[in-house]
Amino acid sequence: MSERKNRQWRLAARPVGNFKDSDFRWTEEPVRSLEDGEILVHSQYLSLDPTNRGWAARDTYLPAVKLGDVMRGGAIGVVEESRNSNFAVGDHVSGLLGWQEYAVVDGAGVGKLPQIPGLPMTAHLGLFGHIGLTAYYGLLDVGQPKAGETLVVSAAAGAVGSLVGQIGKIVGCRVVGIAGSDEKCCWLTGDLGFDAAINYKKENIAEALKRNCPNGIDVDFENVGGEILDALLLQINLGARISLCGMISQYNAIEGASGPSNLFMLIVKRARMQGFLVSDYMNRAAEAMSQLGKWYLEGKIKYRVDVVEGLEQAPTAVNKLFDGSNTGKLVVKI
Amino acid sequence: MSERKNRQWRLAARPVGNFKDSDFRWTEEPVRSLEDGEILVHSQYLSLDPTNRGWAARDTYLPAVKLGDVMRGGAIGVVEESRNSNFAVGDHVSGLLGWQEYAVVDGAGVGKLPQIPGLPMTAHLGLFGHIGLTAYYGLLDVGQPKAGETLVVSAAAGAVGSLVGQIGKIVGCRVVGIAGSDEKCCWLTGDLGFDAAINYKKENIAEALKRNCPNGIDVDFENVGGEILDALLLQINLGARISLCGMISQYNAIEGASGPSNLFMLIVKRARMQGFLVSDYMNRAAEAMSQLGKWYLEGKIKYRVDVVEGLEQAPTAVNKLFDGSNTGKLVVKI
Repeated sequence: MSERKNRQWRLAARPVGNFKDSDFRWTEEPVRSLEDGEILVHSQYLSLDPTNRGWAARDTYLPAVKLGDVMRGGAIGVVEESRNSNFAVGDHVSGLLGWQEYAVVDGAGVGKLPQIPGLPMTAHLGLFGHIGLTAYYGLLDVGQPKAGETLVVSAAAGAVGSLVGQIGKIVGCRVVGIAGSDEKCCWLTGDLGFDAAINYKKENIAEALKRNCPNGIDVDFENVGGEILDALLLQINLGARISLCGMISQYNAIEGASGPSNLFMLIVKRARMQGFLVSDYMNRAAEAMSQLGKWYLEGKIKYRVDVVEGLEQAPTAVNKLFDGSNTGKLVVKI
Repeated sequence: MSERKNRQWRLAARPVGNFKDSDFRWTEEPVRSLEDGEILVHSQYLSLDPTNRGWAARDTYLPAVKLGDVMRGGAIGVVEESRNSNFAVGDHVSGLLGWQEYAVVDGAGVGKLPQIPGLPMTAHLGLFGHIGLTAYYGLLDVGQPKAGETLVVSAAAGAVGSLVGQIGKIVGCRVVGIAGSDEKCCWLTGDLGFDAAINYKKENIAEALKRNCPNGIDVDFENVGGEILDALLLQINLGARISLCGMISQYNAIEGASGPSNLFMLIVKRARMQGFLVSDYMNRAAEAMSQLGKWYLEGKIKYRVDVVEGLEQAPTAVNKLFDGSNTGKLVVKI
C-alpha cells in the first residue's frame, strides 16, 4: 500500500478574517501501513461547514486544530483496506477524516453508511448526516414549532436552513427565509415551498420581517446572529423560541463582534434562546435519517449539493460559506 | 373627602440617561369623590424598581407612562374609603397606585395584603410581593438550580438578588454574588451566607468568576447584562441556564447598548437564556409567599429595606437603583 500517495491540506496559520491561501499548506506523503484495528479510507467527498472556521481559529466545542496538522473536516469515503473486523473493504463510511485523500483511522468516530437505492453518496452530506440531524433536532427539539406558528430561518438557502424551512412547512408553520440573493430567494419560495423569502442584501430586514410576519415570530432558527438576530428580536412573540444553531456573521469578525442590542426582548416576551450542537443528537440519528428519507421519497423535501471539483480547491471553496455564494450543501469532490 | 389634598409626581419628560428632576413635575390637587366600585387608598410606601425607568422611557411589557400622567409605581397603603364590597376601610392593599399619596382605584389590579404578626408592612415590598415572586420563580422555575451546582447572581445586594442567593443556598448551590461595594459584599457573605462575593468595581470580573467558580457556572440569575453577562458567558457549563430577570446596565444607555459578544457560548455549551416576567407567576403568588414566609420565620432568609423618607425624594431616590448606592429593597415612605 505504500505506493499510495496521500494529498493533504495542513493548517499553517490561524485565520484572521476570511481564510487565506497562506493559512494552509499542501503536502504529499505516502500512506502508512495499517496496524491492528485500523482501516484505510479513500475519501470521496469532503464536507465544508461554517464550523471549520472555528476549528482553525480557536478552541470551541472541539480543541483547535494544531498548526501543522491536517485540517479537520468531515468526509465520506470507501474502505480500501481493513484490519478491523467491524469494517469490510468496500464499506461506505463517514467521519472526521480530514482535508486529505486518504485517512488511516481506527473504528472510533467512523460510521458506516447504508447505501440507499436511488440516492447518490452525497445524500449523506446534503440530506442525512450532520446536516439533516442539525436541521431535524435543532428545529423540532429545540425550536418546538407548532402548526400555525411563524418560523423564520436565517441562512435559509444553506444546507441546514433549506431543510429547516421545509420541515417547518411539514409541521404546518408559516415559513419565512432570509437569504443573500434573489436567486436564492426564488429557490426558497419557488422550489422549496417557503411562504416568503427576504433578500437581506436588498431589503431592510426589520421592515421586511414586519411585512412577511404579520403575526410576529414564534420560532427563529438562527444561523447568522448579529444584525439579523437583532432585528428579529424586536418582532418575537410571547413565548418565542430562538434555536441557536450558528452565528456565521460572527465567526470571521476580526474585531470582537458585538452582540445583539435587543436581548432585553427575551424578558419582555418571556422568550427563550437556546444553543445546541448536533453531536448531542448522534444517538438519535437513526430516527432523523428514517424520517428525512421518508419525506424525501414522498417528495416533501428536497436538498441541493454544491460540488466543487478537486481537493486543491478546498481553501478557496470554504470561503463561499462566508461570502454567501453557495446554495445548499457545500462539498469538495476529492 | 374633598378636603384631602393629593400630592403627586407626574412624568414631564422621557428620561435620557439617568432620571433628572426635570423629568418629573410636582402637582397637588384635591382627592375626588368615589364612584360605585371604587376605593380610596392612602399609600404608605412607594416601591422604587429598575423597571420604572423603562416605563417612563418607552413601551415595554406595559405601555409607556403618558407625559403628564402620574408616574406609574407599585405601592402599599391602607383603604380609607370604600364603595367596593370586596374592600373594607382599614384593609392593607398593594397595587400600581402611582407616585402619589392617594389613589382612587377600582378593585381590579389591587390585592389585599394579609397582616402578618411580627412582620412590618414593608415586608410586602422587601420579602413578598413582586420582589419575592421574582426571586422565587425566576430562580426555581426558570433557572432550575440543583444541589451542588454553582449559581451566580448579579446585582446580588439588590432586593431580588439578595433573596435569590439565599434561596440558592437553601437549594444547596454554591452561590457567588456580584455587587458594587465591599460593604455590600460583606453583607452577602457575612449576613446572607453567600459562598463568595465579587466587587465588580474593584475586581476583574472574568478573573474573579474563574477564581470563585472553580467548577464553572451552572445557573446565572441575571439582573445586569452588558459586560458582566459577557464575562460570565465565557465560564458557563454544559447545559447552563441563564435566567434573564433584568438588564439594568442597559436601561439608561443613551446610545444603543451593545449586547454580549459571547452569545456564541450558548451554542458551545448547549445553554439556555430565558426571559421571564413576574406577572406570569401572579397566579402562583400564594405558594411563593407561604414558602418565603416559612423560610423567614425559620431564620433561613433575611431581607433588607432601604427606606427613603418623603414622597418629595422619589425622583432623586430612584437613581440609587442605577448608581448602585442602595442595598436591599428601595422604598419611599410617603
